[in-house]
Amino acid sequence: MAGSSQELQTLINGLTRGDRKSLAKAITLVESRRTDQKEQARELIKSLPAPKSRSLRIAISGAPGVGKSTFIETLGLFLIDQGHQPAILTVDPTSHISGGSILGDRTRMEELSKKEEAFIRQSPSANFLGGVSRRTRETVFACESAGFNTVLVETVGIGQSEYMAAELTDIFILLVQPGSGDELQGVKKGVMEMADILVVTKADGNLEESARKSVRHLKNAAHILQHKDHGMERKVCLVSAIQKKGIEEFWETVQTIRTGMEESGFIERVRKEQKINWLQNVIDEMWLDLLHNDQHGGTLFDNARDDVRSSGRHVYDAAEKLIQERIREL
Amino acid sequence: MAGSSQELQTLINGLTRGDRKSLAKAITLVESRRTDQKEQARELIKSLPAPKSRSLRIAISGAPGVGKSTFIETLGLFLIDQGHQPAILTVDPTSHISGGSILGDRTRMEELSKKEEAFIRQSPSANFLGGVSRRTRETVFACESAGFNTVLVETVGIGQSEYMAAELTDIFILLVQPGSGDELQGVKKGVMEMADILVVTKADGNLEESARKSVRHLKNAAHILQHKDHGMERKVCLVSAIQKKGIEEFWETVQTIRTGMEESGFIERVRKEQKINWLQNVIDEMWLDLLHNDQHGGTLFDNARDDVRSSGRHVYDAAEKLIQERIREL
Repeated sequence: MAGSSQELQTLINGLTRGDRKSLAKAITLVESRRTDQKEQARELIKSLPAPKSRSLRIAISGAPGVGKSTFIETLGLFLIDQGHQPAILTVDPTSHISGGSILGDRTRMEELSKKEEAFIRQSPSANFLGGVSRRTRETVFACESAGFNTVLVETVGIGQSEYMAAELTDIFILLVQPGSGDELQGVKKGVMEMADILVVTKADGNLEESARKSVRHLKNAAHILQHKDHGMERKVCLVSAIQKKGIEEFWETVQTIRTGMEESGFIERVRKEQKINWLQNVIDEMWLDLLHNDQHGGTLFDNARDDVRSSGRHVYDAAEKLIQERIREL
Repeated sequence: MAGSSQELQTLINGLTRGDRKSLAKAITLVESRRTDQKEQARELIKSLPAPKSRSLRIAISGAPGVGKSTFIETLGLFLIDQGHQPAILTVDPTSHISGGSILGDRTRMEELSKKEEAFIRQSPSANFLGGVSRRTRETVFACESAGFNTVLVETVGIGQSEYMAAELTDIFILLVQPGSGDELQGVKKGVMEMADILVVTKADGNLEESARKSVRHLKNAAHILQHKDHGMERKVCLVSAIQKKGIEEFWETVQTIRTGMEESGFIERVRKEQKINWLQNVIDEMWLDLLHNDQHGGTLFDNARDDVRSSGRHVYDAAEKLIQERIREL
């Protein structure tokens, strides 16, 4: 791991050349929780060269079992055919305990992961300050500097992590399971309203008919949803990732939305807002670091814990005492 | 809302009598984000009388569509029949934007919500510091002081919010959809390992056979999962909430686990650990409040935003400058 500013420079040089090992190493540094590496990680992010052209950042969301991996694999291969270099950032939301799923992940994006042109990174999401991953934003920047011009951020599909993913991306895609009327059961209105494009998956075999029906249902449902700030209509697409059907039309829809966003200046505005949001997150995080990196090696915390455990002091009182003591140390 | 210490005392008296309006008011106070109400909310929590007997806190989790509401309604009615007073805390994970789901929530727990003996509260989860809800823990305490001796905390079923719910409860229940082998698709190993009891739902009509099959599959899968710290075997139950079948057996299983936890001292130990975890959360939150409640009404933040927007200063540099300035103010 980069220990000196020279090593850091070597890492940045490698990354800028598009070297995937350097990119992977950079992301590991950026995700590090070690106090001594945080400073370096910030140096790295500050030193990243701007990407050659504006990338496209896409959030891909959907409930488990809806076919996200298959969709992303097919889309990724299509993008490579089109001359793009996709980076795929996925998050394992359960890495708190032992991570991974029992089935399902075994054969995740097997073909795509062998491609030179793609970069796939699975990050742990084990923290409380971010639904997506602590460092997804910085990871996006690193991928873009390394030449990956289409960044797909995969999220799990229900609630908070969607909100975080939307905060990092330009376009939000929600995958929906085919079903006769039930396709909206469990899909929350709030998440649907985040979506620029709703994609009905698995339009093949004996699900094809019900997938078509779902498209009609969703088009109707789309009317009762609030428009997004960019004012463009919410689109509904039909895809069979296995048969690679509908991917081209889907990508054209993405392009149309992107062009609309560019022309209206929406994308510029959104990215500026996202930067301010990032600022606020960074401020909170640095402030919490200040609390936790106290020079007495956690004595204050040990005392507070003892106060609660042994002396029966109320949690609020013990916390207040610690805060006062920490302020005096600053 | 309680404005003086006398009003606070009236609120606490009402709550202690089991008055639901007082309880609802207390929870609203506890969830308030207004600086002037935070102090009162803490006073309230500190003044809550201890419940007459140890309550049972149960997390109920499962993917959307698995039938959580129906299960909780049936269980709640059963508990009332048994002489219990259940409190049900549910979280709307999408309240960021407009909240609520399009279908599904329309007829949520209609019968249970009319019962005198039950208390149902849906809380917004719109924040970053907690997956469940910012104040679920404090809400649990308030419900217990008001005499509700069985508290059900409903979560959405994938990842972070489960971890938070497990941090607040004694027993973790995971509901699983019937399916022929596919029932584990999408259920993450980490979430399964949190569960004390796996419940296969919808064991009725034409799903009954596949529900029975799922029970067998899950019993096999349970072997490859890590045991929980209490060392007791992970149980699998079969339930039809609509036909009210299997609820009694499910509740017996809960009782068995609870008794085991009491006898081994596990429940005591876990609640102590949870208290320390609460302490750490409270410390972080008070520390962040200290940052955000600066006496200059947010001037530092405005300056930092301007630095990033207009002067092109890097987010990290602007954040560092703000932190230094805030320290000088303390």
